[in-house]
Amino acid sequence: MAHFLLIQCPDEPGLVYKITGVLFRHGLNILRNGEFVERENSRFFMRTEFAGDFDPAQLLAELTELLPPGASIRFSDNHPKDIVLMATKEHHCLSELLVRHAYGELNARVLAVISNHEELGDLARRFDIPFHFVSHQGLTREAHEAAVLATLAPYRPEFVVLAKYMRILSSEFVAHYPNRLINIHHSFLPAFVGANPYAQAYERGVKIIGATAHFVNEQLDQGPIILQSVIPIDHTQSARDMAQAGRDVEKIVLARSLKLVFDGHVFVNRNKTVIFD
Amino acid sequence: MAHFLLIQCPDEPGLVYKITGVLFRHGLNILRNGEFVERENSRFFMRTEFAGDFDPAQLLAELTELLPPGASIRFSDNHPKDIVLMATKEHHCLSELLVRHAYGELNARVLAVISNHEELGDLARRFDIPFHFVSHQGLTREAHEAAVLATLAPYRPEFVVLAKYMRILSSEFVAHYPNRLINIHHSFLPAFVGANPYAQAYERGVKIIGATAHFVNEQLDQGPIILQSVIPIDHTQSARDMAQAGRDVEKIVLARSLKLVFDGHVFVNRNKTVIFD
Amino acid sequence: MAHFLLIQCPDEPGLVYKITGVLFRHGLNILRNGEFVERENSRFFMRTEFAGDFDPAQLLAELTELLPPGASIRFSDNHPKDIVLMATKEHHCLSELLVRHAYGELNARVLAVISNHEELGDLARRFDIPFHFVSHQGLTREAHEAAVLATLAPYRPEFVVLAKYMRILSSEFVAHYPNRLINIHHSFLPAFVGANPYAQAYERGVKIIGATAHFVNEQLDQGPIILQSVIPIDHTQSARDMAQAGRDVEKIVLARSLKLVFDGHVFVNRNKTVIFD
Amino acid sequence: MAHFLLIQCPDEPGLVYKITGVLFRHGLNILRNGEFVERENSRFFMRTEFAGDFDPAQLLAELTELLPPGASIRFSDNHPKDIVLMATKEHHCLSELLVRHAYGELNARVLAVISNHEELGDLARRFDIPFHFVSHQGLTREAHEAAVLATLAPYRPEFVVLAKYMRILSSEFVAHYPNRLINIHHSFLPAFVGANPYAQAYERGVKIIGATAHFVNEQLDQGPIILQSVIPIDHTQSARDMAQAGRDVEKIVLARSLKLVFDGHVFVNRNKTVIFD
Repeated sequence: MAHFLLIQCPDEPGLVYKITGVLFRHGLNILRNGEFVERENSRFFMRTEFAGDFDPAQLLAELTELLPPGASIRFSDNHPKDIVLMATKEHHCLSELLVRHAYGELNARVLAVISNHEELGDLARRFDIPFHFVSHQGLTREAHEAAVLATLAPYRPEFVVLAKYMRILSSEFVAHYPNRLINIHHSFLPAFVGANPYAQAYERGVKIIGATAHFVNEQLDQGPIILQSVIPIDHTQSARDMAQAGRDVEKIVLARSLKLVFDGHVFVNRNKTVIFD
Repeated sequence: MAHFLLIQCPDEPGLVYKITGVLFRHGLNILRNGEFVERENSRFFMRTEFAGDFDPAQLLAELTELLPPGASIRFSDNHPKDIVLMATKEHHCLSELLVRHAYGELNARVLAVISNHEELGDLARRFDIPFHFVSHQGLTREAHEAAVLATLAPYRPEFVVLAKYMRILSSEFVAHYPNRLINIHHSFLPAFVGANPYAQAYERGVKIIGATAHFVNEQLDQGPIILQSVIPIDHTQSARDMAQAGRDVEKIVLARSLKLVFDGHVFVNRNKTVIFD
Repeated sequence: MAHFLLIQCPDEPGLVYKITGVLFRHGLNILRNGEFVERENSRFFMRTEFAGDFDPAQLLAELTELLPPGASIRFSDNHPKDIVLMATKEHHCLSELLVRHAYGELNARVLAVISNHEELGDLARRFDIPFHFVSHQGLTREAHEAAVLATLAPYRPEFVVLAKYMRILSSEFVAHYPNRLINIHHSFLPAFVGANPYAQAYERGVKIIGATAHFVNEQLDQGPIILQSVIPIDHTQSARDMAQAGRDVEKIVLARSLKLVFDGHVFVNRNKTVIFD
Repeated sequence: MAHFLLIQCPDEPGLVYKITGVLFRHGLNILRNGEFVERENSRFFMRTEFAGDFDPAQLLAELTELLPPGASIRFSDNHPKDIVLMATKEHHCLSELLVRHAYGELNARVLAVISNHEELGDLARRFDIPFHFVSHQGLTREAHEAAVLATLAPYRPEFVVLAKYMRILSSEFVAHYPNRLINIHHSFLPAFVGANPYAQAYERGVKIIGATAHFVNEQLDQGPIILQSVIPIDHTQSARDMAQAGRDVEKIVLARSLKLVFDGHVFVNRNKTVIFD
């Protein structure tokens, strides 16, 4: 099994040398190493893929001693991540993820699907995944979010994936899953933030539309972008046609962004991501 | 030589039949025909490419009689259009167009280059094109635009192309060249309107950047979009790197959009375009 | 409901006029019209989308009379096409089509799935589609194809879709479904014809891989291409990684090509296609 | 000025640690580090971008001592490379490179242009670059190549760029510039090797065309690929239209591939490349 070491800290001379020295002394062999210094903030990022047996606690202790205070040090492996999917009525992202999951391609265990509507229950059941209908009807936002959080809690998900969940989440909700809440936005952000991006795109007469997978933070549609993709369109396409065409992009972008995150390729750097191949 | 007939009018039954009947009776052979009805506004667009000899005035009279009042009927051929290029300091769009012009690939005659700086004079001279330096130093916007208009006027250009002309033009200026003023915007509109789109893109941490060629109208960066294109970027690229990468997209998008316009493929439909292959 | 008229014949003057005249006299309104003349062979193609009630037999008779001998005249509407899917072991194209079908997005009725292996039976059953396992073990090609044909026959499919069916079909088999047999090839044809295109791509060190949806004819991988798409790759990807990445392209290209065919956008012109928007 | 260290050798444990240790002891700060092990052949590749003053001979000696025998160790900086361009009649790649060169964007000094035709002399002269017309008329291949080599020799170019040079070069010629001869092929290799790829693409009815920049080796169109790019086409485009559309791709792909090579991003690994961001 491949292991990953993900380090983020203030830059200083000798970091690669020191870190790889620890790995070397433990007899671990580096298979791939990516390192990047963001010069603006003099911030160091390194992702190391390595092979061999090791004691994570021991390695962590040695690395912590060597690295500047406040360094973020994460070990990861490609164990399947525990996730919960949230959706509303549109099936395309949910079905994409459930199919990949059924064939072991998602590097995740889908523990449950939560929706504020009933429509997608059939789909979840086809794939033998527990489905929770948590209606928002007649509830305040706070009450509904409390109900969703209560449904999520027992699953203890590592990540929560918004697979076309069409309600805006409060900062309070988001704070429960910092950098662990991933959303697909149906436009090429920052174009067309907010509701009905395809209607907006149609009105503006753009020639390309897109989709954006991003971590959710407390600001709507402003979280760190993981992946974006686009497709060309033309004047013959209505807003509805665009939405249809856009779905193919949305689901692929979401699925690929999850792979990047679950396989330990992605760092969050304030409102941006650093992503190593 | 291929001829083009471009018709735009309110939709009603029988339009294709009536229009092609006129062409048939004049012995003209249709090589390609594109027709589109925008259902929202029940508006009819047709582009016909045909071969044969004809009297434009006669054809126009017959078509006018047949078509609903207010129909726009244009004949076009692929004669080289008379154009003037405007630029500021960056060379990449201007050099792209001058090279294509030098090799007869632009379907246009570049009559002159106008700039508010002197830097690009050398480039214009390399290609034997008159260069006019019209400084904005010490002038009000009105006075500077008047000087530019006075420089443009004797050339009587069919189109004015803003090949990275970095000053905002007033509605009064734009009104002199309705649907004849083409700009390249260095972002994937409507993302990053206004100044410094690459700096904005860097700040936002996007994963794709783009460029947009559009007709200029009275609202900044809101004119009908002709063509857009994008390239992927990643966290390793600074705003300066993005600008550099973006130039390749900008110049190709601008050159291709001019080809579409000059070869009679493009209709303006309020704030959008209808473009036939 | 929208109707489509698809005409292919030798070119001659007045065809658009004559054809649209018939529609006009029947009170039918043209919503979109695409016309193209392949000059090399002087061949005329026209696709007309129109609205209104009509008697197909009457219209066909009038058009046949007007058009040159040998004209192909097809009426179509967007009724769901009856199709059978064939697959082997890989699920990604089959699951893509079954999901779209379940949500009414395929413009088709999937009547059955036929496979030479048992693995995909579960998937078909999840979506309540009859699954036929027709093993090729111990059979000659002729005998196996006869068994497949016998399984297909009672469904009377309008199209047979090879959704990663990994056996080569004989000319005799293909002749049963002329221009009605659609395949997805896992490379950017004509690069990497034949087996193991991803292994070939890895060996060659290409920087882009792709997929090709095409009609099957009697020559392996030589049928008329409907749609192609690509994704960038790099040196870090093994042949296996490429295959994984390629699947996302394959399934989307296949699904989109079916939409083009089922919605009547595609003409076959010898070994090529003519496709109207 | 940024420096680059490029190392290629058989893999063994501790390489990153040992190499970065040398840099650390010399007080050099790593700005970016990319490392990759090709597992198939257990081959190690590392590109390190670093800042600081150093004695290359001393560093080279220390690294040679540490690394396995046969290691390739190259220091590079982003000094402009000395290059000669070769072309035939088509201008688009040559003009692209000359314009970039004139504005300091190529990271190279274009010492001369060599052509087997006279047509491009004007272009070279517009940019004040020496132009050598070396006709192949009446010469054997050997004699013509000898004349070209004699013209090249005094310039001592670091790289020779074939900017649409349309003659096949012998193995003997290629051997003079191993991994230093870069070509643009006007197709998406390995599709359409050999002559007239656009005519081949038209005949085959493909829906995408492309271009490939590659190092030239002794086998025609088989050298290590640096970069590829594509554009969509459709049935309305003739072979000539495709060639025209293809030019935009060719020139950008060639220019970008040169930037990758000149900035020290590219390793040649037998018949492939390893390219670090």
